[in-house]
Order: sequence, then C-alpha cells, then structure tokens
Amino acid sequence: METVDTLRDLAIILLFAKCFGILARKFKAPQVVGQILAGLLVGPCVLGWISQNDFITDMAEIGVVILMFSVGLESDLKELLKTGPVAFLIACFGVIVPLVSGALLYMGFYGVAPWGSENFYKAVFIGTIMAATSVSITVASLQELGKIKSKVGTTIVSAAIIDDIIGIIVLTFVIGFKNPGSNPGMVVIKTIAFFIVAVIGGYLIYKIFFTLDKKYPHTRRIPIISVAFCFGLSYIAERYFGIADITGAYVAGVVLCSLKDNEYIERKVDVSSYMFFGPIFFASIGLKTSFDNVNEKLIAFCICFVIVALLSKIIGCGLAGRLCKYNMADSLKIGVGMMTRGEVALIVAQKGLSAGLLTADYFTAVILMILVSSISTPIILKLLYSRDDKKSSPGSDDSKIAQA
Amino acid sequence: METVDTLRDLAIILLFAKCFGILARKFKAPQVVGQILAGLLVGPCVLGWISQNDFITDMAEIGVVILMFSVGLESDLKELLKTGPVAFLIACFGVIVPLVSGALLYMGFYGVAPWGSENFYKAVFIGTIMAATSVSITVASLQELGKIKSKVGTTIVSAAIIDDIIGIIVLTFVIGFKNPGSNPGMVVIKTIAFFIVAVIGGYLIYKIFFTLDKKYPHTRRIPIISVAFCFGLSYIAERYFGIADITGAYVAGVVLCSLKDNEYIERKVDVSSYMFFGPIFFASIGLKTSFDNVNEKLIAFCICFVIVALLSKIIGCGLAGRLCKYNMADSLKIGVGMMTRGEVALIVAQKGLSAGLLTADYFTAVILMILVSSISTPIILKLLYSRDDKKSSPGSDDSKIAQA
Repeated sequence: METVDTLRDLAIILLFAKCFGILARKFKAPQVVGQILAGLLVGPCVLGWISQNDFITDMAEIGVVILMFSVGLESDLKELLKTGPVAFLIACFGVIVPLVSGALLYMGFYGVAPWGSENFYKAVFIGTIMAATSVSITVASLQELGKIKSKVGTTIVSAAIIDDIIGIIVLTFVIGFKNPGSNPGMVVIKTIAFFIVAVIGGYLIYKIFFTLDKKYPHTRRIPIISVAFCFGLSYIAERYFGIADITGAYVAGVVLCSLKDNEYIERKVDVSSYMFFGPIFFASIGLKTSFDNVNEKLIAFCICFVIVALLSKIIGCGLAGRLCKYNMADSLKIGVGMMTRGEVALIVAQKGLSAGLLTADYFTAVILMILVSSISTPIILKLLYSRDDKKSSPGSDDSKIAQA
Repeated sequence: METVDTLRDLAIILLFAKCFGILARKFKAPQVVGQILAGLLVGPCVLGWISQNDFITDMAEIGVVILMFSVGLESDLKELLKTGPVAFLIACFGVIVPLVSGALLYMGFYGVAPWGSENFYKAVFIGTIMAATSVSITVASLQELGKIKSKVGTTIVSAAIIDDIIGIIVLTFVIGFKNPGSNPGMVVIKTIAFFIVAVIGGYLIYKIFFTLDKKYPHTRRIPIISVAFCFGLSYIAERYFGIADITGAYVAGVVLCSLKDNEYIERKVDVSSYMFFGPIFFASIGLKTSFDNVNEKLIAFCICFVIVALLSKIIGCGLAGRLCKYNMADSLKIGVGMMTRGEVALIVAQKGLSAGLLTADYFTAVILMILVSSISTPIILKLLYSRDDKKSSPGSDDSKIAQA
C-alpha cells in the first residue's frame, strides 16, 4: 500500500467517525458507538472502502495506549489504593464466572469432554476468550459521562486492569498445559516482577519529572517526554514481562498522575487522541468485522457465546460488587462496565489459533462479542447513569460525586 | 514488525528528538536540526536502534502533510496573491539554474553527452533531482524564528510551492522523453485542472466550513473535519492530478485560512504536529541515511553535487530576488530559504531509478544533499536574521515586520 492511500483512509475515517459520532450523540448514544459504526460502514462489511491494514492496526494500538495513559493520568492514586482490594475481588469473579460459563457453553454444544482431553482444553479456551475485559470503551464512555473519577469509575478501571492481568495468566496456564514449552510459573513471577520494577522505576521516573516540571513548568518537553515514557513502559511491559502494553501505559499514567502539570500533559495528549488516534482506534473495531463463512450452527453458537459472555460478566462482577457492599444500582454499573471486550479478546483468540486450541471460524463469535459489547455497554451505562441522575438517589455514591 | 516494536521506536524517536532539539537550541541552532541529528544517531548510521519502516514512513508523510497544512492555514491570502508573480519568477530561476548546473556537473564528471543520447538524459536527470525545493525545513525554521508571515517568508513558501510544481512537470517531461508511455502535455493539463478544481471546490468547501464555523464555533468537529479535508485534498492531488500531496495540503490550508476559527484549527493541529508527527518526520530524514557502498569517485561526485545543488539555488533564486527589487540581504535569505531539499528530491530520485535514468549509488549524493541542506539552511537563516536584528537596517522589509 502506498503512503498516499493512507491519507485517503485517514480522511475517510476521520470524516465518518466524527459525523457518526455527532449523529450518535443526537440519538443520546455515546460518540464511540458512532465511531465503531462508522468503521463498520466504511469497512469490508458494508461499503468496503477501507480494509484493516498494518498502518491502521498500529495507529489503533497507539490510540488505545494513549487512551489508557490518559486514564492513568486522570486517576487518583489514593482512591486507587483504596479501591484496590475491592477491584481485585471483582476482577477474580469477572474471570472465574465467564471462564466456567464459556467452558460449559462449549460442552453444551459439542459434548462433555473429560478432564485433560483435547476437547476439554478447547472448552476451557472458549472460556478464556471471555475472561479479559477491555476497559477502553468503558473508559471512553465514562469519560464522556464525566464519571471516570467517581468511585464506581475508579473501581471498574482498576478491576479491568487486574482482570486483564489475571486473564493473561490464565491464558498462559491453558496454553502451558497443552504446550510444555511455556512455563506458567514463570508468568506469575514475571507479572510480580513487572509491578516491582514499575513501582521502583516509576518512583525514580516520577522524581525526574518532578524536577523537570519544577524547572520548566508548562513547556512542551513535559508532555512529549511523558508520551515517550508511556510508549517505553508499554513496550517493556509487553516485550519483557509478557503483560499487555495497555497495562504498561496505564501504569505510566499512574506514575505521573501526582505531577503538578498532569492536567497540562493530559490536555496535550487528549488533543492528539481525539484528533487522530481515538477515532482510528474505534473505527478499526468496525473495520475488523467480516461476515463471511457463516453457517447456521455457528450463528447459533455465536449468539449463545455473546449472551453468555455478557451475562457472565454482569453476574460475576455484579455479584462481587454486592459482596463489597455496593448498592444494587452501582453493582449493575460495575457489571455492565466490565462486560466490554476488545482487542485483548482478539489477541487471546489469535494465540489460541496458533496453539491449535481454536479454529478461525470462532473469530466471528469473538468479533460479534466485541461489537455487541462495545455498542451496548456505552448505551446501557448511559441509561443507568441517567436513571440515577433522575432519581438522584442519596444511596448512590456516584451521583453524589458527580454532583460535587 | 510487531505493533509493540512500533511503540519502542516511537518512544526512542520522541525522547531523542526532543532532547536533541533542546540541545540544538542551546547551541543557537533551530530545533529541527537537533531532530534530524537525533534520527541520524538512533538510525542505521550510528547506533542502529531504529531503521526506516513502513509505519515511520507513513507517519513522516502525515507529518509533512500536516506541516504544510498548518503553513497554508497561517498564510495570508492577500499577501500570497501579491507575492504570486514574484514567487513565480523566483521559482523559475530556482528550477532552471540548478537544472542546467546539475547537467553540466554530470557531464564534467562523465564526459559531454550529445543532445538526445542516453547519457544526455542521465545528465539532465541529475539536474532534475536538484530542482525541487523542499519547503518543510525552511518553513519550520521560519516558524521558529517568527518570520513565516513576513514578506520574505511568504515569498519563499509560495516560490517553493510553485517550484515543486515546475520540478514535477520537468520530471515528467524528462521521463516522458525517454519513455513514450507518459504524456508531458497531459501533465501540464492535469496541473492546470487541479488548480481550477481547487479554486472552485475550495470555494464551496470554504462556504461549508464558514457555515459550520458560524453554527458551532470552537467545537472539536471544526479541526477534525478540517484535517480530514486536508488529507482528502492531499490524496486527490497526488492520485488524480499527479501533484505532490504536500501541495494539496498547502492548498487545503489556504482554502481555510480566512475562516474565523483558523487559529483554533491551527492550534489543535499544531499540538499533534509537535507531539508526534513533526519529530517523527524530521528524525526520519536522519533515519534514511546510510553510508554503505561509498567509493572515492562517488565521494568526489557527492561533494560537488551538494555544493552545486546549494549554490545553484542560492544564485538562481537570489538573482531572481534582486531582479524583483529585494535588497541584497533579503535576496540572500530567499536564496538560502530555497536551497533546502527533502522528500521530493528522494521521490524524484526513486522515479529515476525505476525509469533507468539513475543507479542506486547516486542515492548517497541525494541523501547527503538533503542532509547538508536541511542542517545548514536553518543555521544560516538564523544567522542572517540575527544579523538583521542587530543592524535593524531600515532597508530590510523583514526586520520591520518582525518588530511590528
């Protein structure tokens, strides 16, 4: 593909994503839904003007990394530590319930498989795909609703991060049991090592930025070097510790969130995010979708897969929320906020394909799950919050914060 | 290449480009010089951490397109029309003098070739490579010096744009004479057609933006749709009219330069430009450089090639400046401002390679010309302007404007 065609693709994506974003808002849905639909429209499914290519994949990845970095920047370290244990419990429930449900669903369709058999691992793998929450769309919706800093918002983001980590550990375990090449124990050690390195290294980096910020406040070097740090940590997380790059980006944001200039950094990062990378990321979800090679049984499986994937997260995380003494409305928000799936599910599916645990046909189910959850989560979240705002119930912690 | 490696590349480029940019400023050189040197350092020439790849090429292209768009946005339509005829004369001299000098240089090294022979076209082609000015580095330097809106600044930018167009017409003529497949007459018609389409289409687009701007001033949709328009016109220019995409981007900027919100658009575009695309573009010039396959005769040719390339532009454009009644100091600035070569020279060289008019060895000369001109132009320009500021000579039009 020539460079000049990239300009054409970008022009179409930016124009359609913005116009559909505005349209979605007119229908009281969040802008990201419009942007995903714009991708679906201009992509191979409908008009076929643009197909997913390496450049768009890379831009989308940068988009999601920047998004997670800005979430980290916005986070409140004290609040995060306070919600930590709760988030951990929610994440555990959010992994276990979908994992078991997914495995049972597969066995329901293709017969019960004995422990340790080929089919057993395939069933567990279907559950694994359902495990990893993708926080990015929820984050974008919460940002739009202005609830990202609320207690529920912080809990969802923290839980989704931990959920990702547990999901990746589970993935490595499942593949590890099938393939003796990878070492599940190593994964746990690497994950712990990353967080130790992140805390120590992060403190040193924070000190450097603190000095830089004091000497040259509000200069361009601060946001530019911050972004370089974010990209660097994302790379190190994924390459050397086997942790998703978005987790690295989030941690990078958390490291810098107590800086005096953190709002200045965020503002600069946000401009690039909404001007270029954000629309490309959300449109690329629509672009990935393709409805070829679909048959009746697969359709039935796909539909059940999506329903189980969504419900198992809502039930698992909502239940954990209730256990942690959130009220019913907030528990539901947590469940819905955690039900989005995204690029991590695709990455997991891709790994299963190369490990022989999955055939390419099931990708349709994964994409459908991503699409349905990506579109419905923001809409349901918005409905839940607007119901709250109407009632303005004194029991809901969020409405208090939002009004503050 | 995996996406995660892209994050690593970006982290290194952004960090080094910014640090070297700051360093360059400390030595009173413009930041872009530091950014090019940063690319040279991390690229295959020195450390070898990063090599040019498709993603960086695309990002760099977007960078230069955005840069030209923002130059167009900053331009003053009235001033541009006023400097038009002068710019045209300067551009003509800026093409003819290097074209003839380059051809003579080749003949000096490899023997006089009779009119119409294979070697004659090769000689003319060496001149053609020297013809196209790359305005981007000059523009960035003038922006840094705050002289982009001055009379000399406007003249240089307009002349460089026209120069590009003439250069591309010459290229098509030279290749056309060798290869009967392309039609030189068609090139002229297409160029004229583009500007007719741009004027008519541009007026309609301006009207749409004018309404949009009136109804929704200072909303995100304005800069986003502007950028989409810029990318779209860049694409159309190159794909359908055979005109460089950067020319399309510049025209897109000029179309929107009279909008009320043009400063708002520019501010948003600038943030993405200095945060991501700009540093990547300038560093990529350094990345492209490689000093393999170099021998003595080639070194001698390269050195002469660079000297002739720079002097012929300074003499040609400076002379035209004098003819247009600029004083000596301003004529020199115009000559120096026009001497930068960039991606267009590389594109021309690449086309010569595929047409059999050039061997790959000469790429070293082209890259050296780009590198030397890119590094020396900003430094010399800065010196010329600082000499002006010291003297504050009443004859210099620029110093008056700069103080206004």
